[in-house]
Amino acid sequence: MEKLRGAAIFGQSGGPTSVINSSAAGVIITALGQDCITKVYGAEHGIKGVLNERFFDMSLEDPKELELLKVTPSSALGSVRYKLADSDVDDTDYKRLLEVFKKYDIRYFFYNGGNDSMDTCNKVSKYMKKVGYDCRVIGVPKTIDNDLFGTDHCPGFGSAAKFIATSLMEMYQDAHVYDNGRITIVEIMGRNAGWLTASSVLASAKGMGPDLIYLPEVPFDEAKFLEDLERVHKANKGSVLVAVSEGIRYADGTYVAENGIIDSFGHKQLGGAAANLARIAQEKLGTKARGVELNILQRCAAHCGSKADVDEAYMAGEAAVLKAVEGYTDYCIGFERSHENGEYKCNIKLISLTDIANAEKKVPREWINDEGNFVKDEFVDYAMPLIAGDSRTPTEDGLPRFARLKKVLAD
Amino acid sequence: MEKLRGAAIFGQSGGPTSVINSSAAGVIITALGQDCITKVYGAEHGIKGVLNERFFDMSLEDPKELELLKVTPSSALGSVRYKLADSDVDDTDYKRLLEVFKKYDIRYFFYNGGNDSMDTCNKVSKYMKKVGYDCRVIGVPKTIDNDLFGTDHCPGFGSAAKFIATSLMEMYQDAHVYDNGRITIVEIMGRNAGWLTASSVLASAKGMGPDLIYLPEVPFDEAKFLEDLERVHKANKGSVLVAVSEGIRYADGTYVAENGIIDSFGHKQLGGAAANLARIAQEKLGTKARGVELNILQRCAAHCGSKADVDEAYMAGEAAVLKAVEGYTDYCIGFERSHENGEYKCNIKLISLTDIANAEKKVPREWINDEGNFVKDEFVDYAMPLIAGDSRTPTEDGLPRFARLKKVLAD
Repeated sequence: MEKLRGAAIFGQSGGPTSVINSSAAGVIITALGQDCITKVYGAEHGIKGVLNERFFDMSLEDPKELELLKVTPSSALGSVRYKLADSDVDDTDYKRLLEVFKKYDIRYFFYNGGNDSMDTCNKVSKYMKKVGYDCRVIGVPKTIDNDLFGTDHCPGFGSAAKFIATSLMEMYQDAHVYDNGRITIVEIMGRNAGWLTASSVLASAKGMGPDLIYLPEVPFDEAKFLEDLERVHKANKGSVLVAVSEGIRYADGTYVAENGIIDSFGHKQLGGAAANLARIAQEKLGTKARGVELNILQRCAAHCGSKADVDEAYMAGEAAVLKAVEGYTDYCIGFERSHENGEYKCNIKLISLTDIANAEKKVPREWINDEGNFVKDEFVDYAMPLIAGDSRTPTEDGLPRFARLKKVLAD
Repeated sequence: MEKLRGAAIFGQSGGPTSVINSSAAGVIITALGQDCITKVYGAEHGIKGVLNERFFDMSLEDPKELELLKVTPSSALGSVRYKLADSDVDDTDYKRLLEVFKKYDIRYFFYNGGNDSMDTCNKVSKYMKKVGYDCRVIGVPKTIDNDLFGTDHCPGFGSAAKFIATSLMEMYQDAHVYDNGRITIVEIMGRNAGWLTASSVLASAKGMGPDLIYLPEVPFDEAKFLEDLERVHKANKGSVLVAVSEGIRYADGTYVAENGIIDSFGHKQLGGAAANLARIAQEKLGTKARGVELNILQRCAAHCGSKADVDEAYMAGEAAVLKAVEGYTDYCIGFERSHENGEYKCNIKLISLTDIANAEKKVPREWINDEGNFVKDEFVDYAMPLIAGDSRTPTEDGLPRFARLKKVLAD
């Protein structure tokens, strides 16, 4: 196929991850090396930056800083949560996009994000096709949640999983120093899919992880939970480490996190799932319990990144550019794994944007034990290769040296 | 002075830190190398293990595992919170200690902990002197809080400070990706002394840290806080990062963390300081705010340790043994800094156990700005050398390889 000549634009969208910028580096560095790509623009705050003509000229960045992007967490160009309307209902944004694309001769559109961002990609691609504007659109996946459909796993998940498993091992050490133990309930991200919470089992596989794990894939049974807790509490001389997903729900669909306190004005106070369970455990079992939220570090702790994840995130960005130059459009980059001589290998595949947009992948029920309070070895085998190798931001004065981009606006 | 011949016992006490085991390695490895020390015992759960005759024979441990102790967080031998009675009031425990010391010919007692543990050391030392039992007692300091009196700084603080500053830099990246920012309030440990919360300014010194910092050393003024917040909120297009100590109090002495919700039964619910402030900020300013607790990772995140801290913690353990063998007793190891050719250097000093026990050191008021909402460069100069160099637990399958001790009980 003939090579399409023109400018490329790249945007970041949705919640940040530790490695979203590694994909950015993959796209930018690879695009800068293509003869047919005349300019490489970075959009400020994703699609919003395209609509507002806020483009950074990526050729003006120091190559050393672009390299540092690989180990700089969060979205260096700025992110956005913006849903494009259906073009049949309201085509204002699309007309504007076309205008901007024409003005800058944009022929390559790379967009990095999760479900919603792939929906944006899909809509942009379909509109450009409809109006006959030749432009190649490729999505680059990212999400710590690992819930994207059609791919073996997602860039961002491995580093989050590694931070979670590492932290749980450290917290296990911390929770076991006294002879009169206590209950520690750790809340991990994941509203509908339990991939991140399941990752805590990697710590258990090393003998220093949670005793009990509850995912949103299985309805949460409070009576059963208290039974589990009491059993482990007795067996472990008091020390119990529990991992729960923020999204666990009772059988009636209510979130455990909503099982909060009604304040004096009658308002329901949303506690975290872990805080609520710690309160319930303490009341019912009469034993000390604390809730701990791993919180936003899960998605930005680049100081404890997975080398496999950082490399694969870069590879996804690189592949997006190479595939687009080859002529592919309307796809999202995906991964499939193979085993060569027993060694894990991650290969690129292409997923139709229509297939990936808005679908959601959960932890298979058969990877969770029958009782619904632990995760099976199948998950350990799946996740172990994804946290392999250590990626760490280089330090200066003992602190991370993140990329410093110039972000020069293009005329 | 003649070398005292006999066995040594070492115990760990109080809350764990990332480097308490590095001091353990320092004591154990050094003691094993002394001719006059006939046996090296590790007490299980500190003083409780001595009272219960639960001793591990440290000579049976693999040297490689003892080395790994340097990068293994929390108390490998088990910790304890146990306050010895005044021996004039109740000498039961002391008689028992003497009995055990005699039985095992213990002539060296090394105890690793904070304020309370130095009190234990002091009491043991005084009692043994009173009854004429020849035994050298040396305390090894540890506390993430850095509030021990008479020492420039404390083993454990540097690693906690490094994790806090690193995390704040990463959270800063995370908090600044959207163009409509939000308020993030991070709660950091430290009930009475603000050393750890002040460390967040190291991130600010790199241009990626909190905009506002509140320590327990200054009474907290809610109206002033909301003013500060509003000002920064306007200046920063909405993104505000705030660091608060868990121990901040209003002028009347009430903890901000107590300013909680009264539930429907009329019970006061204790929120965290950050959660409460986020709620107040959201109500009063009508802008999105979230509270984040750094929580227990602050004291056990060995995956982000300070090399300076790990080395100094080891040095403190080593010095305890060497000083005791030299003939010193009734001291705690302390640090004083010097500057050679402008380079920071940490030197050992001896602090009388009577002086250190139960005293508390706070952040000097002159290191906090007049407004009480930020920390000055004097603190940055003080703390920067303490987080220098990266200490990281070696990994196996991408996860930390902590020390695995055999813990063989001595007969």
